Amino acid sequence: MSTGFFGDIQKIKYEGPDSTNPLAFRHYQPDEIVLGKRMEDHLRFAVAYWHTFTWPGGDPFGGQTFLRPWFEDTMKAAKLKADVAFEFFSLLGAPYYCFHDADVRPEGRNFAENTKNLNEIVDYFAEKQAATGTKLLWGTANLFSNRRYMSGAATNPDPDVFAFAAATVKTCIDATQKLGGENYVLWGGREGYETLLNTDLKRELDQLGRFLNLVVEYKHKIGFKGTILIEPKPQEPTKHQYDYDVATVYGFLKKHGVENEVKVNIEQGHAILAGHSFEHELALANALGIFGSIDMNRNDYQSGWDTDQFPNNVPEMALAYYHVLAGGGFKTGGTNFDAKLRRQSLDPADLLIGHIGGMDCCARGLKAAAKMIEDKALSQPLADRYAGWESAEAQKLFRGEYSLDEITNWVESHDVNPQPKSGKQELLENVVNRYV
Amino acid sequence: MSTGFFGDIQKIKYEGPDSTNPLAFRHYQPDEIVLGKRMEDHLRFAVAYWHTFTWPGGDPFGGQTFLRPWFEDTMKAAKLKADVAFEFFSLLGAPYYCFHDADVRPEGRNFAENTKNLNEIVDYFAEKQAATGTKLLWGTANLFSNRRYMSGAATNPDPDVFAFAAATVKTCIDATQKLGGENYVLWGGREGYETLLNTDLKRELDQLGRFLNLVVEYKHKIGFKGTILIEPKPQEPTKHQYDYDVATVYGFLKKHGVENEVKVNIEQGHAILAGHSFEHELALANALGIFGSIDMNRNDYQSGWDTDQFPNNVPEMALAYYHVLAGGGFKTGGTNFDAKLRRQSLDPADLLIGHIGGMDCCARGLKAAAKMIEDKALSQPLADRYAGWESAEAQKLFRGEYSLDEITNWVESHDVNPQPKSGKQELLENVVNRYV
Amino acid sequence: MSTGFFGDIQKIKYEGPDSTNPLAFRHYQPDEIVLGKRMEDHLRFAVAYWHTFTWPGGDPFGGQTFLRPWFEDTMKAAKLKADVAFEFFSLLGAPYYCFHDADVRPEGRNFAENTKNLNEIVDYFAEKQAATGTKLLWGTANLFSNRRYMSGAATNPDPDVFAFAAATVKTCIDATQKLGGENYVLWGGREGYETLLNTDLKRELDQLGRFLNLVVEYKHKIGFKGTILIEPKPQEPTKHQYDYDVATVYGFLKKHGVENEVKVNIEQGHAILAGHSFEHELALANALGIFGSIDMNRNDYQSGWDTDQFPNNVPEMALAYYHVLAGGGFKTGGTNFDAKLRRQSLDPADLLIGHIGGMDCCARGLKAAAKMIEDKALSQPLADRYAGWESAEAQKLFRGEYSLDEITNWVESHDVNPQPKSGKQELLENVVNRYV
Amino acid sequence: MSTGFFGDIQKIKYEGPDSTNPLAFRHYQPDEIVLGKRMEDHLRFAVAYWHTFTWPGGDPFGGQTFLRPWFEDTMKAAKLKADVAFEFFSLLGAPYYCFHDADVRPEGRNFAENTKNLNEIVDYFAEKQAATGTKLLWGTANLFSNRRYMSGAATNPDPDVFAFAAATVKTCIDATQKLGGENYVLWGGREGYETLLNTDLKRELDQLGRFLNLVVEYKHKIGFKGTILIEPKPQEPTKHQYDYDVATVYGFLKKHGVENEVKVNIEQGHAILAGHSFEHELALANALGIFGSIDMNRNDYQSGWDTDQFPNNVPEMALAYYHVLAGGGFKTGGTNFDAKLRRQSLDPADLLIGHIGGMDCCARGLKAAAKMIEDKALSQPLADRYAGWESAEAQKLFRGEYSLDEITNWVESHDVNPQPKSGKQELLENVVNRYV
Repeated sequence: MSTGFFGDIQKIKYEGPDSTNPLAFRHYQPDEIVLGKRMEDHLRFAVAYWHTFTWPGGDPFGGQTFLRPWFEDTMKAAKLKADVAFEFFSLLGAPYYCFHDADVRPEGRNFAENTKNLNEIVDYFAEKQAATGTKLLWGTANLFSNRRYMSGAATNPDPDVFAFAAATVKTCIDATQKLGGENYVLWGGREGYETLLNTDLKRELDQLGRFLNLVVEYKHKIGFKGTILIEPKPQEPTKHQYDYDVATVYGFLKKHGVENEVKVNIEQGHAILAGHSFEHELALANALGIFGSIDMNRNDYQSGWDTDQFPNNVPEMALAYYHVLAGGGFKTGGTNFDAKLRRQSLDPADLLIGHIGGMDCCARGLKAAAKMIEDKALSQPLADRYAGWESAEAQKLFRGEYSLDEITNWVESHDVNPQPKSGKQELLENVVNRYV
Repeated sequence: MSTGFFGDIQKIKYEGPDSTNPLAFRHYQPDEIVLGKRMEDHLRFAVAYWHTFTWPGGDPFGGQTFLRPWFEDTMKAAKLKADVAFEFFSLLGAPYYCFHDADVRPEGRNFAENTKNLNEIVDYFAEKQAATGTKLLWGTANLFSNRRYMSGAATNPDPDVFAFAAATVKTCIDATQKLGGENYVLWGGREGYETLLNTDLKRELDQLGRFLNLVVEYKHKIGFKGTILIEPKPQEPTKHQYDYDVATVYGFLKKHGVENEVKVNIEQGHAILAGHSFEHELALANALGIFGSIDMNRNDYQSGWDTDQFPNNVPEMALAYYHVLAGGGFKTGGTNFDAKLRRQSLDPADLLIGHIGGMDCCARGLKAAAKMIEDKALSQPLADRYAGWESAEAQKLFRGEYSLDEITNWVESHDVNPQPKSGKQELLENVVNRYV
Repeated sequence: MSTGFFGDIQKIKYEGPDSTNPLAFRHYQPDEIVLGKRMEDHLRFAVAYWHTFTWPGGDPFGGQTFLRPWFEDTMKAAKLKADVAFEFFSLLGAPYYCFHDADVRPEGRNFAENTKNLNEIVDYFAEKQAATGTKLLWGTANLFSNRRYMSGAATNPDPDVFAFAAATVKTCIDATQKLGGENYVLWGGREGYETLLNTDLKRELDQLGRFLNLVVEYKHKIGFKGTILIEPKPQEPTKHQYDYDVATVYGFLKKHGVENEVKVNIEQGHAILAGHSFEHELALANALGIFGSIDMNRNDYQSGWDTDQFPNNVPEMALAYYHVLAGGGFKTGGTNFDAKLRRQSLDPADLLIGHIGGMDCCARGLKAAAKMIEDKALSQPLADRYAGWESAEAQKLFRGEYSLDEITNWVESHDVNPQPKSGKQELLENVVNRYV
Repeated sequence: MSTGFFGDIQKIKYEGPDSTNPLAFRHYQPDEIVLGKRMEDHLRFAVAYWHTFTWPGGDPFGGQTFLRPWFEDTMKAAKLKADVAFEFFSLLGAPYYCFHDADVRPEGRNFAENTKNLNEIVDYFAEKQAATGTKLLWGTANLFSNRRYMSGAATNPDPDVFAFAAATVKTCIDATQKLGGENYVLWGGREGYETLLNTDLKRELDQLGRFLNLVVEYKHKIGFKGTILIEPKPQEPTKHQYDYDVATVYGFLKKHGVENEVKVNIEQGHAILAGHSFEHELALANALGIFGSIDMNRNDYQSGWDTDQFPNNVPEMALAYYHVLAGGGFKTGGTNFDAKLRRQSLDPADLLIGHIGGMDCCARGLKAAAKMIEDKALSQPLADRYAGWESAEAQKLFRGEYSLDEITNWVESHDVNPQPKSGKQELLENVVNRYV
């Protein structure tokens, strides 16, 4: 029943750190217990349908390099693609996958045909999920590739586009619910602007708020149990995207009253493009109570665009998983590889190799992070550093029981004259290097 | 009574566009009427005490280049500096100035001495204001230069530093009120982190929220009529500053319930460092209802740090003032030159020349912006572009009177299939170029 | 004989600065005399075939937005495209155009078919040139879009690709010569690497040096009178491109002994991406004696990729043309608009509007630059600043007539203790603002 | 005889990977043999005098945070500083150090006094070197901090500054020779410009070429056996520095005929600021034959300025040492830590901790690199990828024995139609991750 696309490659196995087999795991062992939980249940890996099966290897200066047998816009090709995809999930041992509608069904001539195509493929996926045990981490609607969305979806100057996009999201939430998806993601690739000269910023932000509330209302209406996630990105394809970063999304959720309804799906590459580190965005989402899921990948620090590479820097990844674990780990979220092969990596085996490397690095990162948590390697020094705030007086200060005058009187009367203490950054960096 | 510092330079006069006198205005004419208001009352120029009189011309690779006679930390020097400063304001015809406490008074050995020194100089300033007519646009506390603040002021791990900072802010609000200041600014230069490894992000954000509320409460208690302003900046000196940009500050204000109490002071260079354009930050602040004032300067697009140069690109400045005017213009805010001479510009005359160039460019930008507003050069195309949203049906959609199902039914039953229309960016760019 | 593509748009005319006609020039007047030469002969405008007629409006997140009737890969479509293109050149009054082979001919199944297709279209172009008077500024080969070039052309690990690329360049030089092209350009879009891990840097640089020498040798063999130009770019599509910037290209030319044979075609956007200003690259090329031509466009300072927008900032453009004029102006080079419409600018009229805006800005920039040169507005202060080097002693120092010991003795014996003088940057910036 | 500055800290020892002692090495073992050579002889660590003993912890927004007992500008303080420095070298076990003149001697009133002060301290150093066995990796002149250099040293508009700088370099080369220094470094921190408006680029480049030749001539005259090194940096403090990156320096050396006399000292942070990776600059210097030494540190990818942090990312460092080893390892060069503590790291112990962490990471990087070389982990796949170029025909092509016509005939007659092969980037990234 194999499609034959992957030749004679067998299910990827764990062979341990000394293995030199490029088609084996060296660190990822699904059943290994970390902090009392199976590694698989911590990491909750998902494969991205778009990059893995749909992206043709093009870039702004060159056409496709990949020649996949399913690269045509028919239902037959869509099913062949699905066959290969589920075969891939099984070979890799990935428990989850994620998709956009446009990744999985042929493009129809209108909304009705899109919906019909989507529903047909959803049924096909449902069978395959049942047969293989692979589950859906999240679904989403592609509201950015078709030319109708060139000026935005929810934020389009044309209300018909808003309506078309809203209807499309409905079909995708329905599909996600039907397939047991654990989250539904909104990435507003065109919700932003190319130039302020033709943009009514206030109006567009209000449109976007309305759109988000439509989604939340619908979720409750149909009893969808998953989490609604927004994926921040600062720019690209637009010059400015409204969901710039975690802090921006938080303000937007507050403004529209849905900060308890919607969480964030944080991507490493998007964090970098917004001028942050991945761990910053994770820590901030934890602090604001809106952490949901991650898109794991890697952005080239030298490149000013979204490179979506497979992650490979274990020290950086250990810090990312440290914040995931410190926040209590994934609930409905997981580790989705929003990563694509370099366009020169033409071979079917490269698809597996990219994911294997990423999963191994995640496993190393997770284990290092777990050990740091067990050892209180970072949390103890942190508690020590802020210990002054635990005194009764400081707690009253913190809770707002003193006014500015009272504080001033106290400073003056006690001649408060604080002396700085070492921040010990290098020491802590060395500590981390004991674990990675 | 002149200090003699500026030699025989006389009060700067308007000589018109054809003047080649480097010590004359070519475009700034305080009494010229623009959109029904005097140009001076539109622009509300302020001189920054710190860059203009305090900065010694150093950079991370070299010591001071400027040799000012007041460069020593005594009250006598502070008064000489004040004499020169008010002389400068008068020569330039700047209606306002801005200062930090540390710019204007000698550093004391403790809080009490700092307060005493500040109060003495405030009295001195009050006399000078009365004598010259120069007014205070805003005051602020320097909570970043002294080593006690190296790990933050409000966000310090040591509650004593929080208290010291709070008390210092009290003295500065008092000083601002006494001098009739129209705003009070908070720039959190050290409210952020160098490394997440030693930072409790959530706790520090809560500390910062508490601090801000202390300020708002105190303002009301003493009946200070000015506006409290936060000045966003993404980083530098820290690796990450909590008041990253306008969107981040907005979320922070919402979280702490002060979005109607506090506004933003937006700096061109900080906008650039945060990955935005100046006009983006202005338009967003308008859209969110938190626009307050501007720090006018220019960041070198090639340099990854805060260059604080005098502005000189009129087309960019016209777009900035367009958004200031479109939002209704300044209320208590104004145009503060947060700009410093290049460190090779040693001569006293350079101080005037830098400001003259900046003021002339602002005047050109303002006049171009005003003309665009009068002509509806940008607002009419904008209204046309979004006209579809004015229909009764679209308004119901916008107001939330349709559910996601209803929208979907409508899309399906009417076979809604919107076609894209030209965004006309190049046309609008050419339109702007008619005005600048 | 019109294709009808541009509807009833007539030849674009000069209507003067007060015109509000979007389809008229406000500043570009071909026959106006600037520094003793016609404006057209200074600017030597060229239209880029690729962006204007071939680019479909796609980006990495969305498919084509433009629907041009010639978007299919046949000779018939290629000729329709040519008809529209030459119609466009005439409507616009552009004296020149530029093209890649892949822009103008259908892709063949092999080298022979490509060559045949190219030759057929070259004949077609030759007729059109004769009929319209439009001339070819430069031709070039597209050695980056086809998947065979994914790992480089001259720098490919496979010598067959080197050979294929070399043969393709031969056909393109032949075509350029036949069409009277005044330059031949090499842009090495894939001559670089995605990762050093799979790259033999030294070998690839040597391959590139060999390739360049092949071109120079062939030029002389066939008696091509035009200039060979390399177009620097730091990255994109590759992570690193070998022709990073002007300084890098200069070192490469020196290493391979062709610094007197090859010049540079400098693009504004590429300069920005390399961390330079456009005027820096122009000034440096002048200083090194390798200035050739320019690709005029504009990169969004906020975007980390090549945005290829139409230029619109006159103050920046004035400084660029200042350096073009200061270096003696264009010889065989010119101003090629390597600029594309934003993908939302769907209308045929937008193609004209983008170019009109660009040409008007260039005209304003040129006139401002010319006036600065006539007035010695910048050159006189420069001469004054370095005047010390004109003394007889300083000239001997400069020419190397003193050794380090002799200089040291002189410093010691004369107690040389130089004092800094103002660099007057703000003054000079204000001077420039008198002209723009 | 201890200064007492480091309290009771004893000489840092190797305790192995399991040690949790922050004042012990976990990976750096000087006598461990790697690729047949002692680790110490591979790495050739040097401590930077400036960051470690001279930098006060200031930044553009805050004054000094470090309170060192030697922070005053007297000969006595300079000697105390030297005492502490050599104590530090011994505690750490660093075989080398590096210095600028301004780091080690009090600033005099003129050239003669500077020279006298320098000579006195050089004698003091000579004794200490003899007593402790610490050696000088390189010396250099600080031609950027004093205000006399604000407009450049060699590239100053004032020839007197050129002369003063040249004389100063002479004294520093003399000092370096006397102390047995193995290299002499030129870092042109102010050799560049703040604005092109006041800069004669061509003249300044020529001045810089003359200056460099003076140095080379003098080296030969006095028989200095060390290597002359230029340290590239793209900008900061200037807007543009002439020694932008390795490629730029190479072109400059070629132009002035000293490409066989001068090599480069490559800094990680400078590579990053120039838009490159560290390994790129190393590989390029190897390819061009100008690799000399490294300044090891780390730049924050989020910060647009030179952060000079201690290195801590082992995977990145392994790739850097891979290229050092692949090029044959250091000759006269070494690993200088051009790294400074964060300004919050106040404690004397932090100085040791920062260096220990850096040295351990270097040791890990070196060992991983050495193993990759032994295993041909990267070199074998590279040889395979380019194997096609080893054929006799390809070699003739490479050597230039075929003309462009001949190549074209061959392509046409053989219907050469090359097919792309996988670049295997992800596979190679996974391979590297086996070693780090």
